[in-house]
Parts: sequence; C-alpha cells; structure tokens
Amino acid sequence: MSYVPSMQLLAQAAEGNLRAAGRLISRAEAGVDEARPALAEIYRRAGAAHVIGLTGVPGSGKSTLVAKLTAVLRSRGEKVGIVAVDPSSPYSGGAILGDRIRMTELAADPGVFIRSMATRGATGGMARAALDAVDVLDVAGFQTVLVETVGVGQDEVEIAKASDTTIVVSAPGLGDEIQAIKAGILEIADIHVVSKCDRDDANRTLTDLKQMLTLGTLLQSKPLWQVPVVGISSYTGEGIDELLERIDGHRATLRSTELGAQRRRRVAAFRLAKTAEAMLLERFAAAAGALAPPLADRLAERGTDPYSAAQSLIEQTLRNGGRR
Amino acid sequence: MSYVPSMQLLAQAAEGNLRAAGRLISRAEAGVDEARPALAEIYRRAGAAHVIGLTGVPGSGKSTLVAKLTAVLRSRGEKVGIVAVDPSSPYSGGAILGDRIRMTELAADPGVFIRSMATRGATGGMARAALDAVDVLDVAGFQTVLVETVGVGQDEVEIAKASDTTIVVSAPGLGDEIQAIKAGILEIADIHVVSKCDRDDANRTLTDLKQMLTLGTLLQSKPLWQVPVVGISSYTGEGIDELLERIDGHRATLRSTELGAQRRRRVAAFRLAKTAEAMLLERFAAAAGALAPPLADRLAERGTDPYSAAQSLIEQTLRNGGRR
Repeated sequence: MSYVPSMQLLAQAAEGNLRAAGRLISRAEAGVDEARPALAEIYRRAGAAHVIGLTGVPGSGKSTLVAKLTAVLRSRGEKVGIVAVDPSSPYSGGAILGDRIRMTELAADPGVFIRSMATRGATGGMARAALDAVDVLDVAGFQTVLVETVGVGQDEVEIAKASDTTIVVSAPGLGDEIQAIKAGILEIADIHVVSKCDRDDANRTLTDLKQMLTLGTLLQSKPLWQVPVVGISSYTGEGIDELLERIDGHRATLRSTELGAQRRRRVAAFRLAKTAEAMLLERFAAAAGALAPPLADRLAERGTDPYSAAQSLIEQTLRNGGRR
Repeated sequence: MSYVPSMQLLAQAAEGNLRAAGRLISRAEAGVDEARPALAEIYRRAGAAHVIGLTGVPGSGKSTLVAKLTAVLRSRGEKVGIVAVDPSSPYSGGAILGDRIRMTELAADPGVFIRSMATRGATGGMARAALDAVDVLDVAGFQTVLVETVGVGQDEVEIAKASDTTIVVSAPGLGDEIQAIKAGILEIADIHVVSKCDRDDANRTLTDLKQMLTLGTLLQSKPLWQVPVVGISSYTGEGIDELLERIDGHRATLRSTELGAQRRRRVAAFRLAKTAEAMLLERFAAAAGALAPPLADRLAERGTDPYSAAQSLIEQTLRNGGRR
C-alpha cells in the first residue's frame, strides 16, 4: 500500500470515507509529523458533532451504556462515532461476553464507527490523540461522538471532561474499594447515570448521588444547568429515553446560554495545554536523547541527585536543541 | 509554627525524627523550591532501604497484603515505611473496614510510618514526589519501604516499577472487565502474588499466571531471576512467609548479579526523565501563564488549531522565559 498523503485522507474522510478516517486517526495516535497540517485543518472544520464523554470505574456498566446509547441515537438516524480510551472496554478488546456480542452488532452497522485508543502512549499524548480522533469523526460526518474513558487516572478523567456533555456512570454494589476511586470523578458530571437499576440496591446509589447534588446546589446561586441523576437498566431498557432527553437538554442549554462559550473555552484551554505539553516533551526527548544516559548513570551511583541532573539535562537540551 | 528550614528538617529526619520526615515529604509533594537542596542531599544519602513496589487492580487485595507484609517485617525487627499512591487504599483514606482496623494497629506502631500521596497533582509530579518520599523514609532509617500504587494509569504502574522489587497482586474472581486492565501490568512483576488463595477459584488464577510465565521463559535464555508465583491468604496467613523468602531471594540476586546495577540504572533513567519532565512543564507553565488565555480563546472559536497554537505558545515561551 503506497503512502497516501494525510491531506488526501482528509479529503476522503470529509466525504465519509471511513477507512481514510481510520488511517488519519492511526497517524494522530502515532504522532506522525506529516499528519499535523491535516489534523490542524480538521480541527478548524470540526465543531458540528455533539461530543459526549462517558466515564466510570471498571464494572460500572459504561460500555454497556455506550452500546445502548448508540442504538437509540441510531434509531433516530444519527451516525455515531465511538472513541474508547479504556483498556477494560469491550471496544478496546477487553470484554464481557454480552458486550462483545453487542459490539459486534454495532460494528456491522455502517452508521457506527468504533475506535479504541491505547492508554499507554507518551504522557499527554493520549489526550491529544483522543481529541484529534474525535475531530476526525466529526469531520467525517458523525453527529454524535461518544468518548468512553475509564474513571481512574488523571488523563482519562480529563478526556471525559473535555467534551460537550460529560456523563459519569455509577453502579450499585461495586464494593467500597472501587467506589472510593470514584469520589474524584463525581464532580465532573453534567449528567449522572446509575446503571443496573433493576437491582434492589440501586436505590441507595441513586439517593446518595441526589443528596450529594442537593448539597452542592445549596452552595450555588441559580446554576444554568441542574445536574440530573438518571437511573437506567440496560437489561429492561429503563431510563435510556430519559437519558437521551437529558443529553438533548444539556446540549440545548449549551447553545442558549453562556454555558456553551464557557465550556468551549475551558476545553480549548485544556487542549492547548495538553498539545503544548506533548510537543514540548517530544521536542525535549528528542534533544535529550544522547545527553540523558551518562547523567542517569551518575544518578544511579548517587554521584548526583535527580534535581541537579534534571536541571543540567534541561539546560544542555535548551542550549542544543530548544530553539530548533 | 515557624518555618523550619528543610536542611534542618533533613538533619532531624536523619536522626529518626518522623515528624520532620513527614514535613519534608509534604514539601516534596507540594514542590516547594526551598526543599530542593535538602531533597537532593537526601537522594545522595539514600539507597540503603529495600524498596518494594506493590501494584494491582482495585479489589486485588494489595492493601491487605501491605498490612500483612508489614507485620512480618516488623516481627523480624525492621522499620517499615509505607507510601500509598492509591486513592482506593485504606492508607489513603479509601477503605474496607478490616483494613482500616489493621491500619490503625500499624499506625500505632512507632516502627511503621504510613504516608499517602495525592494522585491528582501535576503530570509527572506524582512520580517525582513519591520517589522523593521513599528517599526521605530511607534516610530516616526505614529498612524496607513499601510503595503501593493502583495498577491503572501509566504513572502509577511506572512508580511500582521504579523500585528494587516489584510485586503484582492478582485476585481470583474479580470479573473480566477488571482483569482486562491488569493485562498491561503483569510483565513488570519480579514476584507475582495471587491473593485470596483460600477461595476455590484461586487455583485457576495461579495456573493461568504460571502458564503465562512458562511461555515467557521459553523465549529467554538463562534469566538471572525466575519470576515466582506465590499464592497467599491474608485470612489463613498462608504464603506470607514464602513471599518474604522470595523477596529476600530477589534482593540477594540484585546484590550478587549484574541485575542490581541494571535495575539501578533503569530506575535512575526513569527518575531523571520524570524529574526533568516535571521541571520542564513547571517552568513552561510559569512562563506560559499569561500567554495561553488569548490563544485558547482563538482556539475555542476555531480561528486556529491546537498544533499551531501550541507551537506558537512554545516559541513565545522559550523566547520569554525558557532560558531563565
């Protein structure tokens, strides 16, 4: 296969060629220099899709929810892109059997595009690549893009937050040790979902979340958006329609109030920071390559300390390559 | 309370003053500039303690193992430091009741020092701070330092790897969705532990791990260290003594073969990279502070793209402040 220039892939993707879209995403993920002008152009053209970030701890049922949500969005005619930044997601090859079957059904639908991203790339690079992937799907004509991330790890949580609507999925009965991780992600939700609501113990989870939100609201005067808690059951189908209404409601609020512009600015600031960090570290790693090993060896023998060695590495690097 | 200079805290910590050690760790975590010379000096003095990194997914029982291991190390007279970089750990305030009780017992023992680290600080900063904390405890006279991290998230896994001996804890019956996350961390183990071996389904987990290791060994000629799989039960106490033997065995191998020097170089290279990255990003954030918002605003309106904006931010920053 000859190398198709990224600008040409962009033209093809913009006409709905999903193979071209997939190849562009691979280049974004690999950080291919040649793809940058195309990805830059894609960013400028993007912005039409509604991007929904979904996060929750492993076992919260978010992958099943992604499948359900995709099905209802499809039934009203929307094309749906799925970006899975979650090693436990069936969309990334992890899996529980039921989801894998559902995923296979989705994957057979030409109006659905599923893409999983590795979570062990360069620091900062994951967020940059995932957000580039969202833009590619946006430009390729997907009206909704779902970004699924595992709710553990700072980057993962921030990616879910860098969307138009962030959904945090909780589940009853996961055990304290897992729930504790969740504490840090609750506050990023525009919509809370409690999955597995066919279970008896789901009510406690619903009540806990609602109480937490009531306390939060008391501290705020007239919020533009009241964070709802939606109970769903992927088994009975309960709550999926309500969730869709809430998503539409949030989208309408973003459009009709200053919340939309605020959100766009916050996401852009995050994206600028992540992209700059990734570029800076990349440039640094390239320039530091040959300089680092002798410093590391001295450090291993405790003939220097991490701060002095790092300082020296940075100074040498800036002198040699920082202004390339 | 007046500000005690970090160099003075270092002198106190080196005499075994745990309050001083704790204050130094807080300064390392907060990235206090004034503490850097003291932390640098601490690094040069450290290296005596045996550092054990423990990792595993939430629910794998690693916190319970930390408690058990601490008890046996204490019973042979060692002072034990615990650094918990894990939001789900009872040592960080997350908790299951049994562990909380065990932790309270440990905390009452003056030969045990427990410190939890936030996992949501600046990128790269967490690894730097956690490794500084280990050195502080080393210099304060702890013969063994246990570093517990949750086995999800790149930084967390790398911290567990940046130790003398890395233990990966698996548990039977966690469910596929959680196990899938684990796949990426299995290869970092010097010792595998399967917890909850009083359960019937533990045998399958033990067998699976052993098979995986056998396959790995076939590809390697004469490894200096054969990774063992140890089944333990915190309930019956089974396997804890064997685990301790294995840890001692690994330590002896590090000392008597080239594995030790290799390991020290690898850890030093990681530490240099993480410290340099953290310093670089810190310096960049300080210099970029006022320059970023207007670029982010243009980016929000899609009047530029993340790559051009980031490039411009980096160029401006290097011009203004990069050579400070």
